[in-house]
Amino acid sequence: MNIELKLLERFRVVEDFPKKGISFKDISPVFIDPEMVREMIEAMSEPWKGKGITRVLGIESRGFLVGPSLALALDAGFLMVRKKGKLPPDTIERSYSLEYGEAIIEMAKNDINSSDRVLIHDDLLATGGTAGAAAHLVKSIGATLVGFSFISSLSFLPGKEALSQFDCPIHSIVEF
Amino acid sequence: MNIELKLLERFRVVEDFPKKGISFKDISPVFIDPEMVREMIEAMSEPWKGKGITRVLGIESRGFLVGPSLALALDAGFLMVRKKGKLPPDTIERSYSLEYGEAIIEMAKNDINSSDRVLIHDDLLATGGTAGAAAHLVKSIGATLVGFSFISSLSFLPGKEALSQFDCPIHSIVEF
Repeated sequence: MNIELKLLERFRVVEDFPKKGISFKDISPVFIDPEMVREMIEAMSEPWKGKGITRVLGIESRGFLVGPSLALALDAGFLMVRKKGKLPPDTIERSYSLEYGEAIIEMAKNDINSSDRVLIHDDLLATGGTAGAAAHLVKSIGATLVGFSFISSLSFLPGKEALSQFDCPIHSIVEF
Repeated sequence: MNIELKLLERFRVVEDFPKKGISFKDISPVFIDPEMVREMIEAMSEPWKGKGITRVLGIESRGFLVGPSLALALDAGFLMVRKKGKLPPDTIERSYSLEYGEAIIEMAKNDINSSDRVLIHDDLLATGGTAGAAAHLVKSIGATLVGFSFISSLSFLPGKEALSQFDCPIHSIVEF
């Protein structure tokens, strides 16, 4: 069985979480199986090998679960993208729209520069709002955005369209 | 140079963050160096090898950075411990005291049981409040708590005393 099917079988679907009408794909059960985690990281890193990636950006909080391992597999550095106020100075920030209102993400300013080649990672691609804001942060410092890597993506939401403006590959193992 | 000194040299000390009077030890710069991350994970997993650990619990959010890799190094499963409301049902929860008021942490109920041997991980041991609450969660399901693993600990705070009630080893690489 390939890793996509294994993951699909392992995801725990929870209806009406975090709110009514949403069918939540819980990734937690994957992480209790170390062999599956290894295989997942291998499958996620594979498309990016040889692309000269120097930084993997992981989006808080679930993007921290695989981001550092993905960075190690690519022999790259890992950088946290967090909600405003969580990282110490100096940071750069970017705001983006939510369903209601807006949010701000931040990234350390001194651990990345214009010579970096960057992969943005999160566990799930939904509307692409946060990943897009992270991509704007990368662009704002003049670094090269190489692509986006997700464990899974929701194909009934316009995440891929939202990220298409950055004109780089989007990879995910599982599509819902 | 050993890994403790390497980490000490790499931590970024930020004064008055997150509030006045606190000298924040920022671990971010460690993660941009994959070789150092590998060495750190090796040093963190070393004391726990052969102890039959089946679950590593990582505390949100910075406990997610190393927790999954530590679990892989020990060939164990990884489980998230999160603030209340972030994990889908079914969960078990535990409240603990903060400087002002209290907080509640949660853990998935179905990914751990009484036969598990558990290592609790976070990036930093400060007062031990969250790690202690996680330890109570482990005890409440009848699993065996094998120990606590931190990247660093603050020796001027009573974290070790707070965790001594659980009567198991506490390991950290760096002591401030």
